[in-house]
Amino acid sequence: MKALFKVPSSLLKIKTQGQDESTKAMTQKLIEAPELEVQKWLNTKEDLSLKKLRGKVIAIYAFQMLCPGCVEHSIPQARNVFASFNPDDLIVIGLHTVFEHHQAMAETALKAFIHEYKIKFPVAIDTPSEKDYDPIPKTMRTYNMAGTPSLILIDRLGFLRKYKMGHEHDLKLGAELMALMKEKTPMAKIPEEIKGTAQTCKI
Amino acid sequence: MKALFKVPSSLLKIKTQGQDESTKAMTQKLIEAPELEVQKWLNTKEDLSLKKLRGKVIAIYAFQMLCPGCVEHSIPQARNVFASFNPDDLIVIGLHTVFEHHQAMAETALKAFIHEYKIKFPVAIDTPSEKDYDPIPKTMRTYNMAGTPSLILIDRLGFLRKYKMGHEHDLKLGAELMALMKEKTPMAKIPEEIKGTAQTCKI
Amino acid sequence: MKALFKVPSSLLKIKTQGQDESTKAMTQKLIEAPELEVQKWLNTKEDLSLKKLRGKVIAIYAFQMLCPGCVEHSIPQARNVFASFNPDDLIVIGLHTVFEHHQAMAETALKAFIHEYKIKFPVAIDTPSEKDYDPIPKTMRTYNMAGTPSLILIDRLGFLRKYKMGHEHDLKLGAELMALMKEKTPMAKIPEEIKGTAQTCKI
Amino acid sequence: MKALFKVPSSLLKIKTQGQDESTKAMTQKLIEAPELEVQKWLNTKEDLSLKKLRGKVIAIYAFQMLCPGCVEHSIPQARNVFASFNPDDLIVIGLHTVFEHHQAMAETALKAFIHEYKIKFPVAIDTPSEKDYDPIPKTMRTYNMAGTPSLILIDRLGFLRKYKMGHEHDLKLGAELMALMKEKTPMAKIPEEIKGTAQTCKI
Repeated sequence: MKALFKVPSSLLKIKTQGQDESTKAMTQKLIEAPELEVQKWLNTKEDLSLKKLRGKVIAIYAFQMLCPGCVEHSIPQARNVFASFNPDDLIVIGLHTVFEHHQAMAETALKAFIHEYKIKFPVAIDTPSEKDYDPIPKTMRTYNMAGTPSLILIDRLGFLRKYKMGHEHDLKLGAELMALMKEKTPMAKIPEEIKGTAQTCKI
Repeated sequence: MKALFKVPSSLLKIKTQGQDESTKAMTQKLIEAPELEVQKWLNTKEDLSLKKLRGKVIAIYAFQMLCPGCVEHSIPQARNVFASFNPDDLIVIGLHTVFEHHQAMAETALKAFIHEYKIKFPVAIDTPSEKDYDPIPKTMRTYNMAGTPSLILIDRLGFLRKYKMGHEHDLKLGAELMALMKEKTPMAKIPEEIKGTAQTCKI
Repeated sequence: MKALFKVPSSLLKIKTQGQDESTKAMTQKLIEAPELEVQKWLNTKEDLSLKKLRGKVIAIYAFQMLCPGCVEHSIPQARNVFASFNPDDLIVIGLHTVFEHHQAMAETALKAFIHEYKIKFPVAIDTPSEKDYDPIPKTMRTYNMAGTPSLILIDRLGFLRKYKMGHEHDLKLGAELMALMKEKTPMAKIPEEIKGTAQTCKI
Repeated sequence: MKALFKVPSSLLKIKTQGQDESTKAMTQKLIEAPELEVQKWLNTKEDLSLKKLRGKVIAIYAFQMLCPGCVEHSIPQARNVFASFNPDDLIVIGLHTVFEHHQAMAETALKAFIHEYKIKFPVAIDTPSEKDYDPIPKTMRTYNMAGTPSLILIDRLGFLRKYKMGHEHDLKLGAELMALMKEKTPMAKIPEEIKGTAQTCKI
């Protein structure tokens, strides 16, 4: 697990949605997942986008190919999620968010990694920052991710429903994914208060 | 994993529900889960029954305390399921279905096992057969279980939704349990064709 | 891992051999392993004793059949040690040291356990104390074991060379066993200062 | 585990030392380990060589940083071996034998890998072949390694004592390493017939 040293405030807001008690109404409103800023898509016939995938649940695994926690836990879980659910309901995306050792984890290396680790789901290369002093790529910055591995779940309507740095237990993740997949409410019917994914889960 | 040598035909019928193609209509009809025949309940203030638990999803882990596969895989998973979900939605029951080494796995030994393995969910002792020649206890016989460990899932309406001998992967189980928990259809509205739990799962 | 609450002083003496600094000379002298006090031997054609096995390295796994740490770690390791080395050089003994739940772990239950866990090496039932108030069996008391699982290594000359409560890592254990097996010094030649098994190991 | 497609005959000779029955005398003769052909040493103050290390047991882990079996099994074991034994007796060397995805596993990437996987033992980069058509680096070719991960054990006298492609069990490896460390016979006293490392091990 690779943690960045500073977690900007905007990330904390995402992570703790529903816990900011400034106004009750605010906390209940979900945040629409910002679009991915992708330099290049691998493992897919055509470029994807969150917008194009609207209507499906999306599980995004942010990883770095040289991050031990990603290699040991997240990539195998992502493969298992990809193999276990119907792509009409759930899309798995790997997001290569390189924030260190940039030279060692360039596209050529990533392609070899994808080949060796038998990754079959789409992998997006996060766009590097245009600012020379900023090692953090754009989508990682936008989502204010705390490091790698990070797991992001987006519902059928495009709302951000879960952000977690580190590994999620398979049992809980399976339950959360199914809960999101079972939500088929059309846009018009979203209630003011949308209940979170994992509410049936104690952990 | 302890397999009995003979799997009676009635069990096969339960296991393959929806796959017997004699008539399409028949296969779609779910089987109501037969009541448990319990000699004694442990780890619970009052005796339970499937009938009393109607309205909740029920996960039954049939096990033997000296079955290595049960000890290594099923009991830890059952503990995790018990710890992860709201008891208003999901009940975990251990069912001690002793079909061998009966003397070694009597009530005193089971109580020590429950203590040592920190089992907090209710455990039912399956009632031994009244027939001297039959080592298989009554509920195990009724459900025609193929051995231990066996996992049984029952929906909120009391229908048998899954029977599996051996270990179920956490990711898939989490998804199946959540799918069952999300079914809140009142009795009157059950359609003729009830779709199975795991349909969104490819595996 | 099951710890007894009180570790009698004599055990501490065994555990810390070489660290008692009363006299340097004393600390270098090894303790002859006390004979096992066995109620009954299982899995062996004839009764064994440390004396009979003199000339071989002996690995004793003290366990309880309902001790989770024993079942998960020690028994599998003991099976692996038994399968990996030549019985002319190394003998593996399981010692059933029941100090709790006595009724649940009697001989019948132990036999079922041995069968189910495919234990092929000799298993000795430690003799219960004659004192009603003492739950700890005789060999466990003599060796002042701290609980289960416990691992005891005895060298070819009958000296106690290692006592450890809990699990030993395979790599280190393999090295220690081989070091003991490579000691072929005849009785007469034992130097005053016998160097310990694990001296080449840093951990 | 990454296997090369062709295993040249000379490798087979190394692997099956003692089993070639052309002449009994021949089979007993050990092969002196060929010197490593290293492009660059990392993680070490000065360049090493087998010759310089004469007198110590040497464990060489041939690996590729993008080989899943190496990352999951060999690197953690190598770290554990390095941490467990006295460097006066045993030296651990990582040998980066890149035979595929050469561009993705260049020195910069390897350094990032060494940092991320907390490798503290010396790592040698195997020298690439001068022949354009040959993807296999020089030491890998000389030893006729079958792929990665590969484990090579060299005794205090510089003889090749073990070659294994794939993972070796910790228990057996610990025993083999200790057997080699216990060999302190001076050069002059090597008997015509040197018995192999693992003879006490059945597996």
